[in-house]
Order: sequence, then C-alpha cells, then structure tokens
Amino acid sequence: MENEILERLDELLELRAFKQIKEILEEHNEVDTAEYLSSISPKDATIIFRVLNKEVAADVFAYLEPDVQQYIVSAMTDTELADVMDELFVDELVDLVEELPASIVQRVLKNVDPSRRATINQFLKYPDNSAGSIMTSELIHLKMDMTVKEAIERIRNSDIDGEIIYTSYVTDAKRKLLGVVHMKDLLLSGDDTLIEDVMIEDFISTTTVTDKEEVGHLFSKYDLLNIPVTDNEGRLVGVVSIDDAVDVLVEEATEDFELMAAMKPSEKPYMQTGVFTLAKNRLVWLLVLMISATISGTILTKYQVAFAAYPLLVTFMPMLTDTGGNAGSQTSTTIIRGMALSEIELTDFFRVWWKELRVSLLVGLVLAAVNFGRVLLFHPGQVTIALIVSVSLLLTVMIAKSIATMMPMLAKRLGADPALMASPLITTIVDAVSLTIYFTIAQSVLGI
Amino acid sequence: MENEILERLDELLELRAFKQIKEILEEHNEVDTAEYLSSISPKDATIIFRVLNKEVAADVFAYLEPDVQQYIVSAMTDTELADVMDELFVDELVDLVEELPASIVQRVLKNVDPSRRATINQFLKYPDNSAGSIMTSELIHLKMDMTVKEAIERIRNSDIDGEIIYTSYVTDAKRKLLGVVHMKDLLLSGDDTLIEDVMIEDFISTTTVTDKEEVGHLFSKYDLLNIPVTDNEGRLVGVVSIDDAVDVLVEEATEDFELMAAMKPSEKPYMQTGVFTLAKNRLVWLLVLMISATISGTILTKYQVAFAAYPLLVTFMPMLTDTGGNAGSQTSTTIIRGMALSEIELTDFFRVWWKELRVSLLVGLVLAAVNFGRVLLFHPGQVTIALIVSVSLLLTVMIAKSIATMMPMLAKRLGADPALMASPLITTIVDAVSLTIYFTIAQSVLGI
Repeated sequence: MENEILERLDELLELRAFKQIKEILEEHNEVDTAEYLSSISPKDATIIFRVLNKEVAADVFAYLEPDVQQYIVSAMTDTELADVMDELFVDELVDLVEELPASIVQRVLKNVDPSRRATINQFLKYPDNSAGSIMTSELIHLKMDMTVKEAIERIRNSDIDGEIIYTSYVTDAKRKLLGVVHMKDLLLSGDDTLIEDVMIEDFISTTTVTDKEEVGHLFSKYDLLNIPVTDNEGRLVGVVSIDDAVDVLVEEATEDFELMAAMKPSEKPYMQTGVFTLAKNRLVWLLVLMISATISGTILTKYQVAFAAYPLLVTFMPMLTDTGGNAGSQTSTTIIRGMALSEIELTDFFRVWWKELRVSLLVGLVLAAVNFGRVLLFHPGQVTIALIVSVSLLLTVMIAKSIATMMPMLAKRLGADPALMASPLITTIVDAVSLTIYFTIAQSVLGI
Repeated sequence: MENEILERLDELLELRAFKQIKEILEEHNEVDTAEYLSSISPKDATIIFRVLNKEVAADVFAYLEPDVQQYIVSAMTDTELADVMDELFVDELVDLVEELPASIVQRVLKNVDPSRRATINQFLKYPDNSAGSIMTSELIHLKMDMTVKEAIERIRNSDIDGEIIYTSYVTDAKRKLLGVVHMKDLLLSGDDTLIEDVMIEDFISTTTVTDKEEVGHLFSKYDLLNIPVTDNEGRLVGVVSIDDAVDVLVEEATEDFELMAAMKPSEKPYMQTGVFTLAKNRLVWLLVLMISATISGTILTKYQVAFAAYPLLVTFMPMLTDTGGNAGSQTSTTIIRGMALSEIELTDFFRVWWKELRVSLLVGLVLAAVNFGRVLLFHPGQVTIALIVSVSLLLTVMIAKSIATMMPMLAKRLGADPALMASPLITTIVDAVSLTIYFTIAQSVLGI
C-alpha cells in the first residue's frame, strides 16, 4: 500500500475508527490488508479482522503472519472460527496446523468439517519436501461421457473458488486419472461435445512423494497452471497450483543461497529472525570451517624454515589462496545451480569435468602470466620467485576447478545436498592444496 | 520423455520413418517435442517439424532452441512461415526477432501481418530488464456496460488461445485501464450481470518500465496469473503472464548466483556454453580480485620481520582470513537475497547493522573461545600467541560482518547491483583488514 494510505490508517487506528479502517482495507488487495494487520498489534489486528466481510476475512487470514493468526484464532468464537476455516483451502489449513501450537490446533480441527479433518490429517503425513506437502484437495472431477455443457454446469456449481476451477480432471470409477480438461477448451467447444474429446491425455502429473523443487521445475518447464498429484497407485489425490510452486521456487533458491554461504536455512524472513537464532544458524558452519582451516595451519608449520629464510614467500599467500578459492567457487556455484535447474545431470560428469579442465587451463594461464609480470614489476629481478608463484597459481586454479566439479556431484550421488559443497568448504580445501603446492615447489626450487 | 521413447525415436529416425516419428511426437507435450527436435540435427528437425500438425507446430516452435528455429525459418516457404508466425504470441515473436540474425529477421517480419509488425517494433524498444520486454499484446478488452453473457461471447470468439483468456480488461475510450475481470467471476455470475459489477477495481498493475524482477515478485506476493502493463499515461498496452514471470524469477536467481560467485552471467545453459565463453565470463573478476589481493600482500611485506622472528604467526593466517571471509559472506548473502526479495529495504540500514553487530559479537566470542583452547592444545604454554590470535579473530568477525552489511546496501544506494558485493569481494577486503589487525596486535604485544 502507498505510504499516504498507511499514514491515514495509522491516524484512524489512533482514533479507534475501526469502521473507516475496514472500509479502506476492503478497497485494497487481501495481501496488502494481511500485511497491514501483521504490522500492527495483534490485539488491534483482531478487532479489525472481526469487522471485515466474511469472504474477505478468509482470504486475508491465509496471508497473515502465524503469530497474528494464532492471536486471532484464540480470540474468535467457535462459530466465527468455523466460518473462516470453511473458506480456507486444505493446503492453507495444513500450513496453519503446522504453524500453530498444539492447543490451538485442537480448536481449529474441531471447527472444520469431519471429512476435511480426515484429509488434513492425511496431508500432514507427507514428507516436508514432497509434492504432497504443498498440494490441496479441492479439485473438480469430470467423467468422460459428460458433455461440455454438463461440465461447465458442474464447475459453476462446484463451490470452489479461485484459479483451481480453470482445470478439471477426468477420473474413472477407481479415481484413476485419465485426462485433464482446460476451461479454455471447454469455452471454445460446442455445448454437446463430449469431455473425452476435449480432455488432454498426454498431461504432466506428479506423485505425492516427488520432491517439491522438482515439481516447481515442472511448472517452469511446461508453463502449467496446475499439476495433478497421484498416489503410488495412480489415483488422483490432489493438485499443486502455480502460486504454491512459485513460492517453492523462491524458497528453494533462498535456501541454496543460505547453504552456499555456510548458513543453516532460516525459517522466517531476516527482519523477523532473532539475534540468537541468526547466531546459532551461522555458528555451526563457521566452527566446522574454522577447525578445518587448521589443516592449512598444520601444513604451514612444516614450512616454518622456509618463511624464516624467505619471508617474501608469505606475502603471496593471500593472493594464491583467494584466487584458488574464487576459481573453485565459480565452478561449484555453476554446477550446484545447474543441477538444481536440472541443466546438469550426474551422467554429464565427464563432459563437465573435461570442460572445466579446459576452462581452468585457459583462465589459469592468463592469471599466471599477469601475475608473473606483476611480481617482477614490484620485485625487480626476482625471476625465480615470480616463476614459483605463477606456476603454483596455474596448478591451484586447475586443481581448484577440478575439486569444485567433483564435490557437488559426489554429494548429489551420495544423496546429500550439493549446495553444501559451495564456496566456504571449497575454499578451505583449496587453501590446504594450494599452500602445499606452493611450498613444495618453493622448497625444491630454492633448496630450503 | 522416457528413455524407451527416445530410443524408439532414434530407431525410427535411422529408418527415416518421419511419419511414425510425427505420430509419437503428437502424443507428447509440445515442450518435450521441442526438446527432442533441439537434440537431433537441425536438418532432421526441420523435416520432422514440417510434417507436424499446423497448430502443434507453432506451439513447438516457441520452445525450440534459437539455432534450430533459425534453421527451420530458413528452410520454410513464406506461406509456411506466415502460418507459424500467425500462431505465435507477440512476446514470442519479439524473443525470436531478438535471437535471430538480421537477414532472417527481415523474412520473419515480412511474414507477420502489418499491425503486429508495428507492435513488435514498438516492443523491441523496451529496455532489456523491463516489464515491457516480457509482456505480450494479446489481451481481451471488455466495456463496463457489457453483460456477462456478451463478455463470455467476446472471449469465446477472441481468437486468442492460452491462459490469457482467463483474465480480461475493462478500458475506457482512451484505453485507460479501469478494471480486471476474472473468468471465474464471469462463470459464477448471472448472464445479465453487468461487467462493471463483476470487475475488480483494486487490481495490481505495473508499467512498461518497471524492473522485470519486481514484476516477478508482484506475482509471487499477490498470487496472480497475469499482470496488466500500462504506459506512463495509464493506458493498457500489454500483459505479463505467470509463465514468463516464473522464468524471470528463476533467471534472476541464477544471475545472482553467478554474480555472487564472481562470474559474468551467462546467456545460455552451462552445457550449451563454449569453453572460451566460460573462460571469458570467469576471467574478468578473477583478475580484478587477484590484483586486489595484492593489497594484502603489500600489507604483509611490512611485517616480514615478524614472520622471521615468529614463524608460528604465519600458520594462523589461513584460519583467520577464511573465518573472516566466511563470516562476511554469510552476512552479505543474507542481505543481498533479502533485498532481492524486498524483505530488507535501504531504510532498514541501522536496524540491520545493529542486528549484525550483536550477531557478530555472539558468534565471534564463541569462535574466539574455541580457538583459544585449540591453540593452547596444539601449542602448550603459548598463552600470549593464543590470546593474540583469538582477539584478532573476534575483531575480524565483527568487522567482516559490518563491512558485509554496508557494502551491498551502499551498492544498491548507488544504483549498482548488490550481488556484486558478495563473498569474493568481501573476502578480499576482509583479508586485508584481518591481517592488518592481526599483525598490528602481534607487533605491539610481542614488541617486534
């Protein structure tokens, strides 16, 4: 909402002019209304929520922050609660039940009708990252021998609201999915056409246990609005819609960003996450990496004589390890993202590795040449040192990119999340490798 | 497509059994057909493409790789070309025109009808990252005083296919956008209801010059299927649909991953990008960062006496700089992603900084304590060295997180892409800072 409107709402709230607030809010999108209600005190939010129109209220409710939802549920009578719950989709109810404390969950479940309660309980059992966990059960069933006219009638009377009505599903007596019917095809066909002539048989579908990220990519690959979800016997049990898939794509990317920067993914947006939670999410990996970096330290202790004799060698260490780390994380990032988007598969391993080997040779040669010139410029006459540093740099870049190719693919092969094999871990490993190469070469050339 | 089908297609292709290939392909999704045609030789792809059904052909064409599109366009007669072009949406034609070489573009433009040609030329002028560059012009206009029945008739006869027909737009005589009408509301209203009573007036819209990433986030925030696009005078000029918005969200995340790993974003998927292009995209930043890392080297030259006297000091350098870099990139990643998702705004600067300061104090204290114990364990009796390293570590973590808070937000303030201020650059800066702190403390305490 624009700032002027927010200011006007603040003024009205101070005057306790709830009726006027309600009027302004009902002229706005339910997402904005929910954002506004989540920004004021839960007590005020509850008062305003209770004066909203019934139909608007349920839409707004689905977008509220969990703590405001909880406050509102506690404050509502059973009748009010049942009204709101009736309007929510099963997937929204499942989310709600997962977020709320147990005592309130009981009240929520008591106030939805028994058949939906059974569905909710069943849906709660699907694993966290599965298609089952983001699907909803509201969908329109059609039969093959219906006419277009009958189908449109059924959809109009279906009591389901939202974009879900744009796609209907044809099932047989055993609920096995036979075809998908798009509203646009119904509208463009004659009234007496049979559904079996309108339905699409080469539809894209998914199963309850498919990873939800994969489902997100199906939407993006095939430009779909909905994907039907079947159980392991091919029976239609739900549908995932594009808005939930978009959320999944955005969340999964955020999770990868966090993992790749050595953080435990957070459950809430940054501004709503406390200092202790943030510190906890970040500390684990920092500790692991700090301890791992000790390996480089231990390697270095072997070369103490070398530093003492040639302190100049030490000054090239940050350049060498940083460049190795950067070269490695370029590759690992490319491969992690490529695998997340299914652009790179495990079977591509040798093609990818061969490609990275050639890229690293090209990049490494240019870097080594520039570095050679730079060392000579700042330390005239030190040709041997310049050579040692440049050869080490070339080898470091090549080995870094090889390690960074293998590690994410190996992680995936072993069933771990490739995003863990990103910049921080690669940097730590490459550090140890590059310093070993550097001082081994230096010692043998300089005869220390 | 499943592997068995791909193998069957390979066999049929060897037998030149194009008719049978066509039959198999027409039973599959057009995206899969396009993927298959892009995987075989352009010559074979063209032969198969020409035998496909007309309506299927255009759908398939839109999903083909640019080089296959180009080959097919060159091989087609003007009549065939015009047939395919007629079926494409304006946004698909604009993409095509942008990808193809000039000589072929002329043939394409010659074969679309003049009014669409004008639209294409106008759309080509919108900046690369704008809503204008991803919108299409096919949309259904309704008038306020139409009835629902008339509106449905108009939509049925509109000659537009695809999900775009689920949303219509109400405009006045000057094409100013007054309201949005959802098909679901038309279907649920009586035949004689007036459009002005069905249309939504608090609709979300965007302008031609809005950043396309922002448009993507509007879709994800408000759960929309389409967003109307107006020019700077509020006139309706196009519409962005969810499938294009999903592509934008995925591409923008990929671009951020690449930028944040110090790469120039690539235009094609990894497997289709050549070795030279990859090397070029990666070399620029590696060079810049390598040269910048020289600063750390220069700082270190000042402390050569210190290494010579206490070679042990050198062994803690990798642990110190790596931990600083990791702590910094955790923060910069959080802030870059938070700003990309509009969860963190520039006006939050002081709140974010204060939060990061407290987080870094907590994290830094734990790391410093663990490190103190570890140094004493491996180097018994070296209490002074352990203290120097641990205090440097605490300060490094705190300063790293402060720098990593400021830099992305400063970049945004200056109109640069915050994603550039990620791990690699932060690491380089933090290296210089942490080494300065470390050796300054060491020199003054040890009296070197």
